[in-house]
Amino acid sequence: MNYKMIFYITGSIMKLESVLMLLPLLVSFIYRDNEFWAFIIPATLLCAIGLGLSFKKPENSTLYARDGFVIVALSWIIISLFGAIPFIISGVTPNFVDAFFETVSGFTTTGSSILTNVEVVPHSVLFWRSFTHWVGGMGVLVFVLAFLPQSKSQYMYIMRAEVPGPVVGKLVSKIRVTARILYAIYLVMTLVLILLLVLGGMPVFDSLLHAFGTAGTGGFSIKNASIGYYNSAYIDYVISIFMVLFGINFNLFYFILLGKFAAAFSDEELRWYVGVILTAIGAITVNIMPLYNRNILKSFRYATFQVTSIITTTGYATADYTKWPFFSQLILVFLMVIGACAGSTGGGIKVKRLIILMKMGVTEIKKMLNPRSVSPLKVDKKATEVNILSGISAYFSAYVIILAASLLIVSYEAHAADTTVGAVFTCIGNVGPGLGEVGPAGNFSIFSNLSKLVLSFDMLAGRLELFPIIILFSPSTWRKV
Amino acid sequence: MNYKMIFYITGSIMKLESVLMLLPLLVSFIYRDNEFWAFIIPATLLCAIGLGLSFKKPENSTLYARDGFVIVALSWIIISLFGAIPFIISGVTPNFVDAFFETVSGFTTTGSSILTNVEVVPHSVLFWRSFTHWVGGMGVLVFVLAFLPQSKSQYMYIMRAEVPGPVVGKLVSKIRVTARILYAIYLVMTLVLILLLVLGGMPVFDSLLHAFGTAGTGGFSIKNASIGYYNSAYIDYVISIFMVLFGINFNLFYFILLGKFAAAFSDEELRWYVGVILTAIGAITVNIMPLYNRNILKSFRYATFQVTSIITTTGYATADYTKWPFFSQLILVFLMVIGACAGSTGGGIKVKRLIILMKMGVTEIKKMLNPRSVSPLKVDKKATEVNILSGISAYFSAYVIILAASLLIVSYEAHAADTTVGAVFTCIGNVGPGLGEVGPAGNFSIFSNLSKLVLSFDMLAGRLELFPIIILFSPSTWRKV
Repeated sequence: MNYKMIFYITGSIMKLESVLMLLPLLVSFIYRDNEFWAFIIPATLLCAIGLGLSFKKPENSTLYARDGFVIVALSWIIISLFGAIPFIISGVTPNFVDAFFETVSGFTTTGSSILTNVEVVPHSVLFWRSFTHWVGGMGVLVFVLAFLPQSKSQYMYIMRAEVPGPVVGKLVSKIRVTARILYAIYLVMTLVLILLLVLGGMPVFDSLLHAFGTAGTGGFSIKNASIGYYNSAYIDYVISIFMVLFGINFNLFYFILLGKFAAAFSDEELRWYVGVILTAIGAITVNIMPLYNRNILKSFRYATFQVTSIITTTGYATADYTKWPFFSQLILVFLMVIGACAGSTGGGIKVKRLIILMKMGVTEIKKMLNPRSVSPLKVDKKATEVNILSGISAYFSAYVIILAASLLIVSYEAHAADTTVGAVFTCIGNVGPGLGEVGPAGNFSIFSNLSKLVLSFDMLAGRLELFPIIILFSPSTWRKV
Repeated sequence: MNYKMIFYITGSIMKLESVLMLLPLLVSFIYRDNEFWAFIIPATLLCAIGLGLSFKKPENSTLYARDGFVIVALSWIIISLFGAIPFIISGVTPNFVDAFFETVSGFTTTGSSILTNVEVVPHSVLFWRSFTHWVGGMGVLVFVLAFLPQSKSQYMYIMRAEVPGPVVGKLVSKIRVTARILYAIYLVMTLVLILLLVLGGMPVFDSLLHAFGTAGTGGFSIKNASIGYYNSAYIDYVISIFMVLFGINFNLFYFILLGKFAAAFSDEELRWYVGVILTAIGAITVNIMPLYNRNILKSFRYATFQVTSIITTTGYATADYTKWPFFSQLILVFLMVIGACAGSTGGGIKVKRLIILMKMGVTEIKKMLNPRSVSPLKVDKKATEVNILSGISAYFSAYVIILAASLLIVSYEAHAADTTVGAVFTCIGNVGPGLGEVGPAGNFSIFSNLSKLVLSFDMLAGRLELFPIIILFSPSTWRKV
């Protein structure tokens, strides 16, 4: 293991977080909410430790897969630990575990909250809370890669470990340039969303923070009733559309920028993603109509918002879907598990993985019927590599084991079945709200510290697609070879 | 497709079922319950059609994989359709769908029941109901194979499609002899169990029928309170032990008969199976103690019975576990999914598949860390073939799709979440009781005809390990090549 490089890069991440904290500090000055120290103290700490760790670039900058996984997992835990300090100093969540949960939920773009009343939280803390979504959405390490002096091809291991999805394509040959293009698209789309929300009558501060939550597919709101507070069809549909957009593979936006429209719109994952969204909206609209006086427009609007919010793993709410029939809730649970597209800011298993898994099943049945036939598994008309297939099988076994273990630990608290199951599914999928007591109207303060730590682990595992976190915590990683 | 052979073999199966119906007819004479016609009519029909179909052995007896799958799926549906007739004629379940559900539940050794009061059902019908468990446990086609004139190696496809588990090993070179050895072990173990139950004070008729349910890991009882009716620690423990035994790969019993003790007891699947059972018993005993006045013996007895009953997918009950804490219920749901060992009469995913899936995960993580390393996946110290690995991945995708589709259809009826989820999981796992309204104290009469048909499909899919049923119903099977 190249410890020097691990220290160097985590040091750079800490310096970055220190700089990022200047923004909420600025907000604190603007709104005079007297929370300066909540940001000055952790920013100073981060800056000092970060400078110490990344003082001198190691001569041997070679990174292997193992180093990449460890760097990513370690960085995410460190930024969450330091990112929790403002919540503690400001007194918003004096308990450390609560603050850690809230910060992990922010960076992993989950959006599950401990807070029972967000409307009394100071502006600067609210800003930091939503800003973590925006930072975590595209990935902190991808950000650092965009500015690291040289872009060695070994940094690919880092990018692969942080960007969601089974396959990471470099857009251009240099990773540094790829990272910059991704961030530029991300930034521009966020700015357009802010503008549209302001035009729809949402206050500027609210627009900014809700745009952070939408872009990162996070879901922290600054209103207790989430987006439902504004009660505006325009705002609902604007956010719905942008949630869907941020759930699409960013490579496709780059194709569109280059004028390669055919390549973008013929993408197999995109077609399935849109197909699933439309089917789910249709089914839920019909199913919930009796609850809204058979008003099809209203049912369609609530169904559209909730489906797009859940499949993109954002988690904003305009209606309390825990009061919907179980059929609709079950569809939402499936969407939580499915998640958005690979290479987007969304969480979940990802549409692409499920397509490949489904095709593996079909290929295998064909092989059973005609043992001598050879039919390679194709996605987007290209044969898929064998190691991607076995990687996906491994992903599913890891997913099932983490899910089962988490359910067992959290269930020991004896909450209702839907609460327990909903909490674990929503956290590992980085969605936000769950079912029962942790539905859109509830919050996660009901859990014990142990369960909150388990759920924090699930959020990190889900965001980093299981392997970095598993590898960080497995003893064999640390054994001398 | 070799249609002539398909007709010939399904014809043989129908003749067999016709003969099997003579047993309940005999019971009807002994107990004078006046249900002769309920068996004479279907037996005559089966005999006539069966003789017609299998009148002449086709000259071309070549069977391919596709034929094997179709024969198995078709045979199971046919024996269930005809096996339902006694329930209808006797008036026990006048509705055809109910009778079909009950018969499928019998043959697939699920044990989920439509009946609200089994204690008023005539003796001969009760006998037929429990006897279907015994017949379905080891497999109807395996039985026919034991007596088919010549044992072509192509019959292996049939055996592979009917016997549970990812790998089917022929015990001896001839399939016919293998099938006979399996049935002999099965018969002797059942007789020993009957004897032990009679010695424990259970009436002979009850002992016979409960032994059928135990041997087939079915779970139909002839008492509304299931095994709890007898309220005997001796009976509870005898049945617990035999449920565990019938959940073990029968090949191991053959090894023991041959004196190969080391080979039997070092079996990796057996060790995991026993390990899971002991862990689950321990956890549940501690968890339910407060409900039984902290009486550890009572808690241990109930926990042992329920754990062994659920993991072997039998489904007998001595306590209403829907009243246990959610933690214990969750463990039972996991056991439902896990199921027994490959090559046993039990259902579920099978311990062996899960071991291989877990090892695939570990191997893959190792490969991520050291891309150049080659470490073959080993079970019982032997490297596993690649096509078994991809077969297991396909099995899981099929399992998840059938599970999700069934949940969606059944959930449309708006029963509680635990009832719906419990029903689908228990049926696809061939367990019997579920959660909520379909717990050990409830029954499946609450569902609509559509849901009952979906659950019947799940039971058949679960018993035949998904592929035969999927292949039978997929249009591409029937397309001309």
